[in-house]
Amino acid sequence: MSEQLLVQSPATVANVAAGFDIMGFALNNPFDEIIVRKTKEKGVRIFNETGTFPSMPLEPQNNTCGIALQTYLAHVKPDCGFDLIFKTKIKPGSGIGSSAASAVAGVFGANQLLGEPLKRKDLLRFCMEGERVASGVAHADNVGPALLGGFILVRSYNPLDVVKIDTPECLCAAIVHPQIEVRTEDARAILRKEVLLKDAIQQWGNTAGLIAGLMKNDIGLIGRSLNDVIIEPIRSILIPGFKEVKEAALNAGALGCSISGSGPSIFTLNDSIETAEKVAEAMKSTFEAIGIPTFSYVSKINNEGVKAFHID
Amino acid sequence: MSEQLLVQSPATVANVAAGFDIMGFALNNPFDEIIVRKTKEKGVRIFNETGTFPSMPLEPQNNTCGIALQTYLAHVKPDCGFDLIFKTKIKPGSGIGSSAASAVAGVFGANQLLGEPLKRKDLLRFCMEGERVASGVAHADNVGPALLGGFILVRSYNPLDVVKIDTPECLCAAIVHPQIEVRTEDARAILRKEVLLKDAIQQWGNTAGLIAGLMKNDIGLIGRSLNDVIIEPIRSILIPGFKEVKEAALNAGALGCSISGSGPSIFTLNDSIETAEKVAEAMKSTFEAIGIPTFSYVSKINNEGVKAFHID
Repeated sequence: MSEQLLVQSPATVANVAAGFDIMGFALNNPFDEIIVRKTKEKGVRIFNETGTFPSMPLEPQNNTCGIALQTYLAHVKPDCGFDLIFKTKIKPGSGIGSSAASAVAGVFGANQLLGEPLKRKDLLRFCMEGERVASGVAHADNVGPALLGGFILVRSYNPLDVVKIDTPECLCAAIVHPQIEVRTEDARAILRKEVLLKDAIQQWGNTAGLIAGLMKNDIGLIGRSLNDVIIEPIRSILIPGFKEVKEAALNAGALGCSISGSGPSIFTLNDSIETAEKVAEAMKSTFEAIGIPTFSYVSKINNEGVKAFHID
Repeated sequence: MSEQLLVQSPATVANVAAGFDIMGFALNNPFDEIIVRKTKEKGVRIFNETGTFPSMPLEPQNNTCGIALQTYLAHVKPDCGFDLIFKTKIKPGSGIGSSAASAVAGVFGANQLLGEPLKRKDLLRFCMEGERVASGVAHADNVGPALLGGFILVRSYNPLDVVKIDTPECLCAAIVHPQIEVRTEDARAILRKEVLLKDAIQQWGNTAGLIAGLMKNDIGLIGRSLNDVIIEPIRSILIPGFKEVKEAALNAGALGCSISGSGPSIFTLNDSIETAEKVAEAMKSTFEAIGIPTFSYVSKINNEGVKAFHID
């Protein structure tokens, strides 16, 4: 059996408009690339070969990938350790599941190298521990799709109940990542603890509508359901130009547009790659017109999730 | 063309646990039976031949069926009027859509007799006006399924967006109607205007989960999703014995159990007719053990909705 793997773990869009804390989907790009290497020596060692993320914590207990892997190892108790060599890293604080991608990569890679003592789905709770370090909350709406691929509904956290939802083949995401920082903790802190019942009713109409639209291949219903009346109005305050960027996306043909995760990235869903490319360009140029350099990504929904390649 | 129809309009279960104000489904029984008769004289006349509901308002503007029909007639402006002769009436205040059944029957019957100037789906907004008279709110989660049949998601009220959801063939409802009165207005008045965000998240996980379970034919997921953490804990206070009846239903094998509409009826969904019959019996005997006479109904989901028969 190979002693090391190159693991590719994808970026993810969580919340998906109305589905705050309960929905997410995986992208084909960007992704983390981490070499996971089995070592005789027990424990976890982290090496940063990204060249783009000099401040990455190298102590396992402060690193989302390290903490998730340690939690997994404490459960499986193998007679070995692991090195984690980060090669490519999704930019932290982007709102497209950077910490989730790392947590999933480490746990998935180690489980593969140990001959899969646990099933893929059963790795989720260890990956969630990485999220607890990153954001203070062990949420599953990024690690779920990064691990399992596709569009994931987290129906419940206690007990954990994760459901994969089929999506239309044509569906394509466009994401822009303006180069500003929004800390997940801050994005959580500004939320109100109470919401109006009438807004909550609208929100659960939209979560139910989005699931129905995805499963019925009803593009119109998907678009109408991509509407967050509770979180977006508050969090969008942290993203300069949000309103204009959203307007540009919808004018360019996006089915819907909202904040990805806790931001600052903004995602759209679209009826084709061609529309997604136009929409990405429209959003990017709107941000850049107000002086904010912006990365953009176009991706179909990644139904595979994290994957590993044998390397010598 | 026939000048009169016997219209059968079904009882409905609204809310369906987590789906407060946005979900409902139609039953095969009980139902309203109303003769809708075209008359030369304009206007609406109401006759009560039920024998069981002596206090039925006969002035069209105070009768949910009358008001819905008047709203429809004001739109279509036919050169005739209608008599509404009530033959069988679902008991008002039952929580299984008594007012919705009547509103739907009148509008549907008149539209049929006029040669269907409007499509079935387009009758919904007139039927909703009947609901406004009955409960002060023009909700659609009873009139939707009574008119269209099946399991209905009301994604949005403004604009009105109604989606039919496929359900597993085996699914069967058991409903008990304890003979106590809960007024819809009271059941609305005791609700809080604000809810905790953490509860709302759980609720929209369950609405999304229920839609996914129904469309995937996943009986387990349906059961796990039939869980209302916001409305049921408050409204169940108005139903003596609720906790014990729910426990009896779940012990007898129900997938889930909650209040039907604004109560006092309680519904369950079940994996077969046989289970539904056991569950209905268990619930009914639990109510009767505390001295509350109780009607029970067992019904598959009625995919057809309101229907009309030509009579001489």
